[in-house]
Amino acid sequence: MKSRKLKMGMVGGGITGFIGAIHLRAALMENRIELVCGCFSSNPEVSRESGRAYCLPEERIYSTYQEMFEKEALLPHEERMDFAVIVTPNKHHFEPAMMALERGIHVVLDKPMTFSLEEAKALQQKVEETGLVLALTHVYAGYPAVKEMKARIAAGELGNLRRIYVEYPQGWLAERIEIKSGNNAGWRTDPNLSGKAGCMGDIGTHAWHLCEYVSGLKVEEMCAELNTFVPGRPIDDDGTAMMRMEHGVKALLAASQVAIGNANNINIRVYGEKGGLKWIQEDPNKLFLHTPHNPEQVIYVGGDYPYLSQRAQWNIRTPGGHPEGFIEAFANIYRNFALTVAAQKAEEQPTPEMLDFPNVYDGVRGMQFIETIVKAGWNDEAKWVKWVE
Amino acid sequence: MKSRKLKMGMVGGGITGFIGAIHLRAALMENRIELVCGCFSSNPEVSRESGRAYCLPEERIYSTYQEMFEKEALLPHEERMDFAVIVTPNKHHFEPAMMALERGIHVVLDKPMTFSLEEAKALQQKVEETGLVLALTHVYAGYPAVKEMKARIAAGELGNLRRIYVEYPQGWLAERIEIKSGNNAGWRTDPNLSGKAGCMGDIGTHAWHLCEYVSGLKVEEMCAELNTFVPGRPIDDDGTAMMRMEHGVKALLAASQVAIGNANNINIRVYGEKGGLKWIQEDPNKLFLHTPHNPEQVIYVGGDYPYLSQRAQWNIRTPGGHPEGFIEAFANIYRNFALTVAAQKAEEQPTPEMLDFPNVYDGVRGMQFIETIVKAGWNDEAKWVKWVE
Amino acid sequence: MKSRKLKMGMVGGGITGFIGAIHLRAALMENRIELVCGCFSSNPEVSRESGRAYCLPEERIYSTYQEMFEKEALLPHEERMDFAVIVTPNKHHFEPAMMALERGIHVVLDKPMTFSLEEAKALQQKVEETGLVLALTHVYAGYPAVKEMKARIAAGELGNLRRIYVEYPQGWLAERIEIKSGNNAGWRTDPNLSGKAGCMGDIGTHAWHLCEYVSGLKVEEMCAELNTFVPGRPIDDDGTAMMRMEHGVKALLAASQVAIGNANNINIRVYGEKGGLKWIQEDPNKLFLHTPHNPEQVIYVGGDYPYLSQRAQWNIRTPGGHPEGFIEAFANIYRNFALTVAAQKAEEQPTPEMLDFPNVYDGVRGMQFIETIVKAGWNDEAKWVKWVE
Amino acid sequence: MKSRKLKMGMVGGGITGFIGAIHLRAALMENRIELVCGCFSSNPEVSRESGRAYCLPEERIYSTYQEMFEKEALLPHEERMDFAVIVTPNKHHFEPAMMALERGIHVVLDKPMTFSLEEAKALQQKVEETGLVLALTHVYAGYPAVKEMKARIAAGELGNLRRIYVEYPQGWLAERIEIKSGNNAGWRTDPNLSGKAGCMGDIGTHAWHLCEYVSGLKVEEMCAELNTFVPGRPIDDDGTAMMRMEHGVKALLAASQVAIGNANNINIRVYGEKGGLKWIQEDPNKLFLHTPHNPEQVIYVGGDYPYLSQRAQWNIRTPGGHPEGFIEAFANIYRNFALTVAAQKAEEQPTPEMLDFPNVYDGVRGMQFIETIVKAGWNDEAKWVKWVE
Repeated sequence: MKSRKLKMGMVGGGITGFIGAIHLRAALMENRIELVCGCFSSNPEVSRESGRAYCLPEERIYSTYQEMFEKEALLPHEERMDFAVIVTPNKHHFEPAMMALERGIHVVLDKPMTFSLEEAKALQQKVEETGLVLALTHVYAGYPAVKEMKARIAAGELGNLRRIYVEYPQGWLAERIEIKSGNNAGWRTDPNLSGKAGCMGDIGTHAWHLCEYVSGLKVEEMCAELNTFVPGRPIDDDGTAMMRMEHGVKALLAASQVAIGNANNINIRVYGEKGGLKWIQEDPNKLFLHTPHNPEQVIYVGGDYPYLSQRAQWNIRTPGGHPEGFIEAFANIYRNFALTVAAQKAEEQPTPEMLDFPNVYDGVRGMQFIETIVKAGWNDEAKWVKWVE
Repeated sequence: MKSRKLKMGMVGGGITGFIGAIHLRAALMENRIELVCGCFSSNPEVSRESGRAYCLPEERIYSTYQEMFEKEALLPHEERMDFAVIVTPNKHHFEPAMMALERGIHVVLDKPMTFSLEEAKALQQKVEETGLVLALTHVYAGYPAVKEMKARIAAGELGNLRRIYVEYPQGWLAERIEIKSGNNAGWRTDPNLSGKAGCMGDIGTHAWHLCEYVSGLKVEEMCAELNTFVPGRPIDDDGTAMMRMEHGVKALLAASQVAIGNANNINIRVYGEKGGLKWIQEDPNKLFLHTPHNPEQVIYVGGDYPYLSQRAQWNIRTPGGHPEGFIEAFANIYRNFALTVAAQKAEEQPTPEMLDFPNVYDGVRGMQFIETIVKAGWNDEAKWVKWVE
Repeated sequence: MKSRKLKMGMVGGGITGFIGAIHLRAALMENRIELVCGCFSSNPEVSRESGRAYCLPEERIYSTYQEMFEKEALLPHEERMDFAVIVTPNKHHFEPAMMALERGIHVVLDKPMTFSLEEAKALQQKVEETGLVLALTHVYAGYPAVKEMKARIAAGELGNLRRIYVEYPQGWLAERIEIKSGNNAGWRTDPNLSGKAGCMGDIGTHAWHLCEYVSGLKVEEMCAELNTFVPGRPIDDDGTAMMRMEHGVKALLAASQVAIGNANNINIRVYGEKGGLKWIQEDPNKLFLHTPHNPEQVIYVGGDYPYLSQRAQWNIRTPGGHPEGFIEAFANIYRNFALTVAAQKAEEQPTPEMLDFPNVYDGVRGMQFIETIVKAGWNDEAKWVKWVE
Repeated sequence: MKSRKLKMGMVGGGITGFIGAIHLRAALMENRIELVCGCFSSNPEVSRESGRAYCLPEERIYSTYQEMFEKEALLPHEERMDFAVIVTPNKHHFEPAMMALERGIHVVLDKPMTFSLEEAKALQQKVEETGLVLALTHVYAGYPAVKEMKARIAAGELGNLRRIYVEYPQGWLAERIEIKSGNNAGWRTDPNLSGKAGCMGDIGTHAWHLCEYVSGLKVEEMCAELNTFVPGRPIDDDGTAMMRMEHGVKALLAASQVAIGNANNINIRVYGEKGGLKWIQEDPNKLFLHTPHNPEQVIYVGGDYPYLSQRAQWNIRTPGGHPEGFIEAFANIYRNFALTVAAQKAEEQPTPEMLDFPNVYDGVRGMQFIETIVKAGWNDEAKWVKWVE
């Protein structure tokens, strides 16, 4: 009997960075995916060395992604790659993704989805044409506690929403480290590789996505200010936005890469007529619930808590007090993506739980977010800017 | 030998509210002030009952503040009141304060200083004419940890500042409780008693003051949005402002009275080129310091820590681990005010530590803050609004 | 009409230490007590200087407590002191306390109540004979959250109790600082001034008291180990005890003065059949409640929370989010003591809330605790030692 | 070219429990191990269903572990299993482990290593005879922050140690849930399956191991009390021990399964002459460092912090602020075990970092811990009990 694991090929993600290994762990953890091939770097030496470190046979370590897609297509159907994961700078998302889709290969992409909004829309069109599955690693939407938050809000536990605060402070770019090598700052602060936005593309998109994901509401207009605090940097490294969402909900988004001491402090607080919910990524297995005139409730998110929603339970691996973290959140995206692809292969309808991963539509909206905040944030005249479609 | 305690008369603050007793405790704690008279309510019955509860002799419990100022003036010099503390709705700050100053009586006032900016400027002029002392109870500036924050920033520990986040979320007005009696919401949500701003007058002013106090910088322009979330309420109960401060510093201010579960969660984070500092009022005896590439430092603020500044040490009462709180912060304002008045009486120069309390100039700027944020916050056209002088 | 304030005389507590000022603030804060006289030091110069700093008239600053008691007795009844507060090393608690009681003067005493158990029993007998009021400043029993904990346990919210953990780690004696001057370590580590126990007398008694206070149960036997970690110190600076309480409840007590980084970290956790409660003194306005299969509840202790017990409400001064601390807890002991004395003077029955302060019986049991833990803790042979009566 | 992955066979760990999937994720995450066969349950149906869920071919899903070891031995050398992981109740650790070792198969075992001390010693002897590798999943020693703690203590950062507090409170056995099915409590509370100790075997051993691991010191004698709080339970569900370690260090161990609200709250605090360190498993990526007269340092444990030891860095996967958790700690044991086995296969010397996983000697000492605490804890006569060899 054949293995039923999905076969993954990787574009980028070599051993000189750290994010490739994160993707790999997230993909492998659930025993539903195996790495079968890859082109891990634009440098063939690095690609080869990485492939060996990842235990691949020589013949499936490729020098270019074009070569990979071509040669894999020649393999017997049951051996060739099922999906490609693309872990490259933003500038280099679109081409391999489009090539994969054109060859009937599913795709997992890092966010933001593309370099430009136009590319994003082209991917959307291709996904719609082909019916293939595209997952976007907005990893914070993979945390069970975030899913619990979404489920409770959707169930009306907070009543009609009023006010959202979403923050993503980091401090690692407080100095101009991009002019040194050996870090991930280079392409992120280079508009030719990252796109129109720096801070807002890299982390602002995560904050925006979290806000729309948990609330189930869309941003409609925005008043923003972007800043570049570090001299010589050609792109934003900080910014804030007042966002008007559907149904009169007001959201405040603050993101910064110069807030020294904040490692990766994305957090969100949502308030409605009947209560409030808070989640802090660096303490990810808890949710804080407030209702009027009652004690605060600290909702632990673990497998043995009967009070959790089905949406959360589906994505939990451990009983309470056994912390899950970033890699498990990442793995939830891979697992749900893999289950969806498998269901599709089996000509079954994926369940709503399987479909709970960020997809091409999130990717398009993310690029629209970047367009909108850049337009609003560098302009001192227009106060409110409509969402750029 | 005569007692050297300062003699305090009180306007408002009767036993039907809680804030009068807070002022009293803060004033009495240091054994430098005694309560000698008062008119505690516009209701003479309540005033009398309160005066008795506060252990005053009958003849020094008054029915109106006018009567109090007149009759006290007839007492021997060493018996009469030295200063008046005014604990009334904003609408009723100005008249008793001005009357006190005109009679040579020092004043302690709740914030915001007055109902209108014009009144504030008139008080400033009178203070300058008379040389009397006016203290404003921006209580959060009284916390030792806040003073430590100010001292470290002034000493350059963070380098040039870049980004400030100041928040003041509360949740107690998430429902329209002001239509019921028995709470403090009534006058605070009534523009005829509170002034042009609700949330921003009541708590936004504290957040703004904290921001300018710890940074030593002034706000220059503002882009804001005010909201009223609770139907039927004629004044703001929520708002956010992007504030541009001197030297290019950007501050984000968020205040809300509908953020359910937040009791009184004022907090501030300041980031500069060289580090960051964070303070959270509900955990008030700690300061969090971040410098690049180093562990976070949790600076405990207690009398036995040699690493604390003189500015903080002067305002500490207990060794580490023996929590000080809101009443002690309040008491620091009273103590420094009392020492300043005593120095003035003794024809001595108060030390800088004695003068470290909010004064009439803070009061005027506070009213300008209200004018500016109301102008900016309800207007969807003008993005950036200059500070209203 | 005469002031109804209670008149306080002080023994010890001069300006060279910090604890006198703490007592004074706690006593004065509620406007029910005034300082009228004192002998603040065995050094008459320090006593005089302290009295002046405390705003006393010269004639009521005494050089010895004997002189104080004698001269005060000659004053008109309405002027003389009502009660004495004794703030001296343990060795010097008994004599002034006994002298006060013999002259009809109520007493407030620091803990442990006396130098020896015999002295404690003598004070108990005298209190019973005279009907006077003696309060002991086990300050941690003064915190509203501790009272809430006691109230909930008494109401059966945890079911029958099973297991208690009470800890009191400090770190300030990790070095032999007592051989330097200018700190409070000298008499505390000298068996001739502090009594049989060092760490266990100074802070172990607080931990034990908290354990019996919140549980309403008494310790029956003990297995303990005392340690002296700092070379040259003639008394315990650390210890642990397994304690068997009434009804089969097991308590674990750990106290240390060499746990570097712990300022004053007394905390208690109580578990019963139906739930658990936790309190941490350095974050004193919260109580953590656990029940099976439910989220943790963080119970904020503030004046506006309807879910709090009458026992707690009576001792709260501020609404939620306005932290109360150590001095307010201290002030609750003074206030309840003062109300009890006032009720007695008025020939009324004090209410249960008024009587909620540690008294002479707590003092005797505290001395028995010291006897028991010293007997158990330095003996490697006997495993379980019965409570020493 | 052949895959260089290690081939894993599993005993126990079927889909009806949760711990098998945890082991699997931990093993697979690093792409160095693949699951090739298993006998997942004593129920052949469950074993088969589990093997299919784990994507195994039918022919390598076995009904008994005896069958597995026999049939695997007949496979070509490059296909057969390299090591067995044994995830069964304690009673059933020894036989499959011994059978594996006898057939030249390496072993990963859950703790406690065996049912009895005798079995443990037999395994030790066999490991020494064969030179095979045996890893024990004392998972808490796999956390990078714990390794950082060990490294700093070994480097003398705390000076000579004095006092350790180690706790492991849980609450899930506060009711007698073992009489219901569908939970993991059954065999854990049955002395015929778990061994002499309940709470102390299941979680006390973890606490003890953590204490010896981070301190590098051994327990020499013990004074203890074990308790059974839940009526009808035939084994301890709570206990405390005062432990005397080498060099005069005193440790206090407290473990409980009836402390409601504690999910899995293992934590440790170590104090020496020069400082203290604290770690709390439920917030696992931080370490709290205290030195005299300095602010607390919160040491974040992430890949980008230059201040971390080599021992910690080796075991970190993510940059700061991207939480790692329980599964990653588990995976560190698997990874280091796998690297050691691989080095052995390659006839290379494993590095010290590779060898940093609990092994057969930890397993023997763990069984001695159980013997000692059971002897000390149920005996009211002997105060101090020597470590049982």
